[in-house]
Formats: sequence, structure tokens, C-alpha cells
Amino acid sequence: GTPMSDRLAQQLDFIVQMDALKQVFRQTLLIGDRRAENDAEHSWHLALMAIILREHAAHDVDITRVLSMHLIHDLVEIHAGDTFAYDEAAHEDKEAREQAAADRIFALLPEDQERDMRALWDEFEERVTPEARYAAALDRLQPLLLNYHTDGAAWKKHDVRHAQVIERNSHIAEGAPTLWEFARQLIDTALTEGKLAG
Amino acid sequence: GTPMSDRLAQQLDFIVQMDALKQVFRQTLLIGDRRAENDAEHSWHLALMAIILREHAAHDVDITRVLSMHLIHDLVEIHAGDTFAYDEAAHEDKEAREQAAADRIFALLPEDQERDMRALWDEFEERVTPEARYAAALDRLQPLLLNYHTDGAAWKKHDVRHAQVIERNSHIAEGAPTLWEFARQLIDTALTEGKLAG
Repeated sequence: GTPMSDRLAQQLDFIVQMDALKQVFRQTLLIGDRRAENDAEHSWHLALMAIILREHAAHDVDITRVLSMHLIHDLVEIHAGDTFAYDEAAHEDKEAREQAAADRIFALLPEDQERDMRALWDEFEERVTPEARYAAALDRLQPLLLNYHTDGAAWKKHDVRHAQVIERNSHIAEGAPTLWEFARQLIDTALTEGKLAG
Repeated sequence: GTPMSDRLAQQLDFIVQMDALKQVFRQTLLIGDRRAENDAEHSWHLALMAIILREHAAHDVDITRVLSMHLIHDLVEIHAGDTFAYDEAAHEDKEAREQAAADRIFALLPEDQERDMRALWDEFEERVTPEARYAAALDRLQPLLLNYHTDGAAWKKHDVRHAQVIERNSHIAEGAPTLWEFARQLIDTALTEGKLAG
């Protein structure tokens, strides 16, 4: 056969290495058997949500960019690890750890794709464009749904309180106002039902 | 607060129920710890590949349609279960089982979305459009990569032979000729290296 191009070899090596995302575990539990969810499953779920809930985005969005952000947004955690949304100490150096990991991960790709993927990841992190705001809103809503449907297991384990959940998630409103209205009600219901402490 | 619309309630119920895809396990093993991969992780991996390998598609593709197909292509397995690519007996009633599951799964969505998602799933299954052919090519290539990088564990376990792997995967060529050229070489190398039986 023909020798494979260096470019394709680099792309395939990236794809093989990214398999490791399936072994980065989060604090959120699955609804069914309540094991910890991993980042690959989480990323798939967000992308599915992006398609189904698109009409609820605050602005018209380029859905390919939203999906691409979801698919790559957690790759840095292969090196930087998952930082629990309510762990304030870990958040102090989260950005530095993730920037270093992004340098390393995206450098596996051919240069043009490294540039494109890094730009997408930066856009997601900066949460300024309608696409990034919608993508980030779903990244918050998804664990809320899982926490609610597992009797608040992750909230209880980490002693997370109602006010913290409201504060950490209120930016959902920037990306998808209707979804924030729903999320607020879900958080309040969780409090009433004893799934979340006051 | 305002009462939630029935439409949004239906969409969110679908999203919550689809969490079950994370508990549908495949024969393929992860490269790292060699546990069985699940359908949610697999779907994420395909969608990531679709973005990175896009230039290798046989024709210009509408990438949003490709990504959407990848994200939903295995949802039917929540009810129909995973059918191993080389299990000929199970393939006899696979289509009937999956059609029934598709009726049930997509009916959870609001009618317009049920229609759209079902059309996408049918398109993927029929493998006629450039998008479906490219999407299906990656659905074959991904387990080849994982099998190769786990010393052919799934092939060995099920006594799958070189000729079967060639036959089952040759349609990769329809969707992405360069990737089939690569895959063929990978399959031959697997044979030489004793990862796959002759």
C-alpha cells in the first residue's frame, strides 16, 4: 500500500490518545446505576442536548461550533483532571493547569487544526459569543439534571448548599434564559424535596 | 415561576432518559484500562473523529448532519441492545429490533423533532448519502483502532478472522477512501503481529 501521510498519522494518533477521556471521572453520578460519569459520556450528552434544545438558545447559534466546543471542551482534563464545580480551592489554579494541558493536547494535531481547536476551546472558556454562552449553559444544566435525578447524591456528598448552586449556575441565563428559568425551579424543588440542603 | 411548556418538558424527559446510553456496553475495550466501552463514549469518539478527519470524506459533507447522526445513531440500543458486528445470528433480527426501538425512542420527542431525528437515523442506516457514508465509515474505523490498540482483545475473544474483518469493514471505502486504505493496512498489520487470526 501507499505510505500514510504524516498528517493523517498525526490525526489518528490524536484520536487514539483522546480515548483517555473515557477514564476521567466526574463527581456527577449516572441516573441508572449511580456510578460516576466520565468526561466522554458527559461530552456526548451535552452535544445531544445542544441539538434538541437549540430553540432555547438566547440567540441564533452556529450549531456546528456549539457541537465542536462540547466535543473538545473537556479534553484538557486528560492532563489537568476534573475540577468539581463547587471546589473553591481547586479553582484557584484551575485556569493555569488547564491552559498548560491545552497547549499539550492540541499540539498533537497538525498546526492548522491545533490553531482551530485551541481557538474553539478558548472561545468556550471565555463565554462571550452566543455559541460559547449556549454551550456553557448546557454544561451547567446537564449535571443539575443528573444531580436532581440521583436524589442530589453529589450535592450531599460534598455538602453543597442551595445558594451555592444558584450562584454557580446562574450564568445559564446568559446562554438560554428559558433553561435557566427551568433550572431555577428544579433547584428550588430539590431544596423542598430534601435533595439539596438550604 | 412560569409553568414549563409541555414542549420543553418533553425535550428534557428525552434528555434524561437518554442517560441510559451510558449503560449499553459494547464488545470493544478501552485502550487504557481495557474495560468494555459504552455507546455514549463510542458516540462521542465518532463525533470527535468526524471533525478531525473531515478532509478525508469522499465528498464534501454537511458536518452538522454527520455529527447529529453520530450523536443519535446508537440510541436505539437502549432498547435493542448492542449487536456485535461479527455476530451473524444476532444480525438476522437486528433490523426489526432496531426499527421497533427507534419508534419508541424518537416518540419521546415533540413531533417535529421526532420526524427530524428519525429521518437522520434512517439516513444513517441506509448509507446512501455522502454524510451517512462518511458517518458509517467512522463507525467502523473507531472499533478497528480500539481493537488494534488492545492487542486484538475483542477479535480474539470472539474468534474473528482477518477475512471477516476485511469484509465487514470494506464499506469504509465508500465514505472515506484514504481511511479505508489506512484501515486495510492496520488490519494486515494486526494479522502479521498476531493480534488477529488468519
